[in-house]
Amino acid sequence: MTLGEAAEELVRLGTDFHRRGWMLGTSGNLSTVMSREPLRVAITASSIDKGRMNPRQILEVDGNGKMLQGVEGRPSAETLLHLEVIRSTGAGAVMHTHSVWTTVLSDFHHGQGGFGIEGYEMLKGLEGIQTHEHREWIPVVENSQDMAALALKAHALLAEHPKTHGLLVRRHGMYTWGKDLATAARHVEILEFLMEAVGRRQMMEPT
Amino acid sequence: MTLGEAAEELVRLGTDFHRRGWMLGTSGNLSTVMSREPLRVAITASSIDKGRMNPRQILEVDGNGKMLQGVEGRPSAETLLHLEVIRSTGAGAVMHTHSVWTTVLSDFHHGQGGFGIEGYEMLKGLEGIQTHEHREWIPVVENSQDMAALALKAHALLAEHPKTHGLLVRRHGMYTWGKDLATAARHVEILEFLMEAVGRRQMMEPT
Amino acid sequence: MTLGEAAEELVRLGTDFHRRGWMLGTSGNLSTVMSREPLRVAITASSIDKGRMNPRQILEVDGNGKMLQGVEGRPSAETLLHLEVIRSTGAGAVMHTHSVWTTVLSDFHHGQGGFGIEGYEMLKGLEGIQTHEHREWIPVVENSQDMAALALKAHALLAEHPKTHGLLVRRHGMYTWGKDLATAARHVEILEFLMEAVGRRQMMEPT
Amino acid sequence: MTLGEAAEELVRLGTDFHRRGWMLGTSGNLSTVMSREPLRVAITASSIDKGRMNPRQILEVDGNGKMLQGVEGRPSAETLLHLEVIRSTGAGAVMHTHSVWTTVLSDFHHGQGGFGIEGYEMLKGLEGIQTHEHREWIPVVENSQDMAALALKAHALLAEHPKTHGLLVRRHGMYTWGKDLATAARHVEILEFLMEAVGRRQMMEPT
Repeated sequence: MTLGEAAEELVRLGTDFHRRGWMLGTSGNLSTVMSREPLRVAITASSIDKGRMNPRQILEVDGNGKMLQGVEGRPSAETLLHLEVIRSTGAGAVMHTHSVWTTVLSDFHHGQGGFGIEGYEMLKGLEGIQTHEHREWIPVVENSQDMAALALKAHALLAEHPKTHGLLVRRHGMYTWGKDLATAARHVEILEFLMEAVGRRQMMEPT
Repeated sequence: MTLGEAAEELVRLGTDFHRRGWMLGTSGNLSTVMSREPLRVAITASSIDKGRMNPRQILEVDGNGKMLQGVEGRPSAETLLHLEVIRSTGAGAVMHTHSVWTTVLSDFHHGQGGFGIEGYEMLKGLEGIQTHEHREWIPVVENSQDMAALALKAHALLAEHPKTHGLLVRRHGMYTWGKDLATAARHVEILEFLMEAVGRRQMMEPT
Repeated sequence: MTLGEAAEELVRLGTDFHRRGWMLGTSGNLSTVMSREPLRVAITASSIDKGRMNPRQILEVDGNGKMLQGVEGRPSAETLLHLEVIRSTGAGAVMHTHSVWTTVLSDFHHGQGGFGIEGYEMLKGLEGIQTHEHREWIPVVENSQDMAALALKAHALLAEHPKTHGLLVRRHGMYTWGKDLATAARHVEILEFLMEAVGRRQMMEPT
Repeated sequence: MTLGEAAEELVRLGTDFHRRGWMLGTSGNLSTVMSREPLRVAITASSIDKGRMNPRQILEVDGNGKMLQGVEGRPSAETLLHLEVIRSTGAGAVMHTHSVWTTVLSDFHHGQGGFGIEGYEMLKGLEGIQTHEHREWIPVVENSQDMAALALKAHALLAEHPKTHGLLVRRHGMYTWGKDLATAARHVEILEFLMEAVGRRQMMEPT
């Protein structure tokens, strides 16, 4: 995959996610692996408006997050977290979104370190899940501006929960991933659906 | 109706339902009867992304769910449930959608085996209903990955409630149907509206 | 205004209102006065799918609701209510929509015969309102399939509340109107906004 | 910036905000500074339908709100508030929107004179905010039709809270601003997101 091909796909996804309210303002980042050996990743530049993205804002970075190619902007500090997820899970693409429901649920469930989503048919949209009789544990970590520290926390969490498909950062948003861009993008849709269902179910019988 | 004609209509509906949040990810299936004697049904292939459907993903199956024609993919296991609904109700089209509101309400009302929707003018959008003074019973069945067992349950339910226009599978979604594609698609709109109204009404005065 | 001109505008509005969830399925009707002496009204045909409207489905009726011109369908029984509103208020256009929020609020407040919307700046979008220091009383009437009876009730209500800009029919929807099509359509937007605001405000502190 | 350039941008933003439900009916106004010395501001004309805006409805006013150029309509009374914000904050653009969530929260928190939004990553989308460990105080002022009085209140508030990025008028809507149009428009998106998140979080555990 060339940087041009990656850029076209990431701009298409970013524009769509912005329209759906999952990457408003300058929030969120998307990345995809271009090659493994050596590791080369295409990622959205820092602080760009997701409603007006263009391919020049997609950058190529190496395994340390150093920029190798790109016309506009610089890599986001969150690049470190994308690289950590790629290394820990073997993912081919990582999506970091900020939706209202993930923000609200990350805060509501933070005290318990996360929450389970269980018994929903939609769980089968997550790679490797064959039945609704599955409990997906969604870890929630405290937010931090220290990305190296957050990457370490993510590393520990992914070692502890190697089968998880996503994690939330408190009052911040979601990270999810997949073997390729299409899978990672589907995971965003699936998890956003499940968060909204879990959130509204909770509102139906407030505790 | 040829497979090509059916495919065009099912792709149009699937794309619209995806946009409206009723068939996110790979969820849901749509089918329509092409002929009765012998029974030939056009149905969406298993596990396709409803946001990027194309006509090659619409397959022709016989009355046992065996694939007769099709370019991409294989029939979903849920084909059995579509065929059961077609046989039990005489429907010309079956729509299986997964929305947030049907998911939430199927869980909320599961303990009572279903719930009634009564007194709403919008009920008149359901085929054969002439007045709002109607009580539509929406049965809810427990979810299962055993589609033959689920088809049997649906068979029993439809024998018990022959006038029902839809049923919910717990934490899974809705099945509705109609004499033709336009009627079945209208039933999706009508029932989704009613579910949202019933759900929000409940939230206004939580029990 | 010719029937052709009226049809173009009503189809445009109906299609937009369907997209926004205010006239799903076959619900709702829109009308506009073509001439006063004698009274000639353009109105949507009965039971048409608002997501797929075309100009042939707009009919011309006289002051008794008798069809004078039209290609497809017949006048809705609700034509009587449109004519009553036109006569009682002098309106040039009448919009009958079915949204989730009007449906939920019509049920929630039915016991009190209506509800007040007070102190909202958005009220100034209603014709003749110059300040937010206004209390708009929204009457709610019980639903009925007897349109002559419902028209009589509306007549009495509009005599009692001559300055009201809209009324709700329980578990059914809203009627609003204006001196012309643009004003009536704006009233739909304004009242839908206010209903959602009032509904969500209620949910914030459930009684 | 010429009036023509400003008009193009304001029409584009107004049309987008209408579509997203933030400037329904005739509600809201948008403005941008064309020059500082002397002060020249482009602003939307009073009482125009935001769903059908055109560039002729954008007017040029001087520092007293007197109209200097424009084809259609006259300056809104709220021009005074725009000018006050421009002078107090040095903003290059001011956005006044009316959304459901800002309306609901302005009413809910009015008794406390405002409310804090704290600990959300999305706060970093506000100019000058580098960390989620920030408490943004959103002042709420009582609504009034006396724009000179409201401008005085805004003046006092902005002197007291010089770092605030927006303020709410009770049951009315939001004012936000930025150094240029793109920043002010981003602030609308960011604050709307935060209001919805805060509102839904409150609904999850009603007080």
